[in-house]
Amino acid sequence: MDYAKIAPMMSRLWSPIAAVTSAHQGRDNAQIAVAIGGASIVPDRPRVVAQLYKTNFTHEMVSGSGAFALCFVKPNQLDLVHELGYRSGRDQDKLTAVPYHRAVTGSPILDDCYAYFDCRVVNAMDGGDMTVFLADVLEGEVRDGEPLTWQHMRTLMPPAWMDEWNEKIEGELEVSRRTMDTMESIAWPRPT
Amino acid sequence: MDYAKIAPMMSRLWSPIAAVTSAHQGRDNAQIAVAIGGASIVPDRPRVVAQLYKTNFTHEMVSGSGAFALCFVKPNQLDLVHELGYRSGRDQDKLTAVPYHRAVTGSPILDDCYAYFDCRVVNAMDGGDMTVFLADVLEGEVRDGEPLTWQHMRTLMPPAWMDEWNEKIEGELEVSRRTMDTMESIAWPRPT
Repeated sequence: MDYAKIAPMMSRLWSPIAAVTSAHQGRDNAQIAVAIGGASIVPDRPRVVAQLYKTNFTHEMVSGSGAFALCFVKPNQLDLVHELGYRSGRDQDKLTAVPYHRAVTGSPILDDCYAYFDCRVVNAMDGGDMTVFLADVLEGEVRDGEPLTWQHMRTLMPPAWMDEWNEKIEGELEVSRRTMDTMESIAWPRPT
Repeated sequence: MDYAKIAPMMSRLWSPIAAVTSAHQGRDNAQIAVAIGGASIVPDRPRVVAQLYKTNFTHEMVSGSGAFALCFVKPNQLDLVHELGYRSGRDQDKLTAVPYHRAVTGSPILDDCYAYFDCRVVNAMDGGDMTVFLADVLEGEVRDGEPLTWQHMRTLMPPAWMDEWNEKIEGELEVSRRTMDTMESIAWPRPT
């Protein structure tokens, strides 16, 4: 499969950038994600799907708590994306300097963001290197402005961050290549 | 949950409009979907997630064949979206007048579209009213132009189609409300 042949369409299938937050066993954490989708046609029962990579600390926390919040960031929050997206919360508290509160599930809601959804997991699918979480949106709000996309962020951020990003992704690619076909729980083909 | 509070962000979480096609037991079919996402960070192992509603004939066909193709349509293909998205393939062959060929999986690839992905299912998650399919993209291509979004289509299509759409969605909402919490296969909470 030659990725160049489909790259322009694949890049349109990522969501705006969100901080995915979670609270578990007395700790709060957040990571950055762009693989989020709408998952309900019923307006008063909104749902989302969110993909979280298994090596991320947030994956462990969401698996434990069964809840997370999505905080979609604004174009002026590049530093926040850098802070939350480029290192792991296993070793440090990434939210020390970030003001937040809690809503329904107890997951951290960043005070400053374009929109937030407070979510409770209702099902999950093993993707090998990642898990797809299906979740009810229990509370949420959208503020003025617009969400930041990765395409937009690339044009705004310091070039050094791109190098830093490529270095980080290099290690993640290696892990994904090794694990994406090793799903423990497979609902396909359907049990008969 | 007051949907108006999150509507502007939810609407940004749908994908461009795709015809989701499938071939099973000698029949070919296609439906319209906007709940498609990227699902791999490995360029040469592209994956997608696609949500298909259980009442759709395509859901039955994809469940049977384990394969589908995504054909993202262009802004000048409104008639095609109307043709494929407003009625069911159970009763008629929706593709009679639509030129298509096949690639790897045998799913119909529309000759005319912005981009196509030929996909094989690798896992699935029960969402109650719908199934989230995780699939490898085995072949694909992007052509010139841009994909059509639902937001864009709403501004282009005849007003009568909106009434027709609202009538169709009314019945689907009723089914979703009744079934979205009735998942038979739940991988959450995780088995311990």
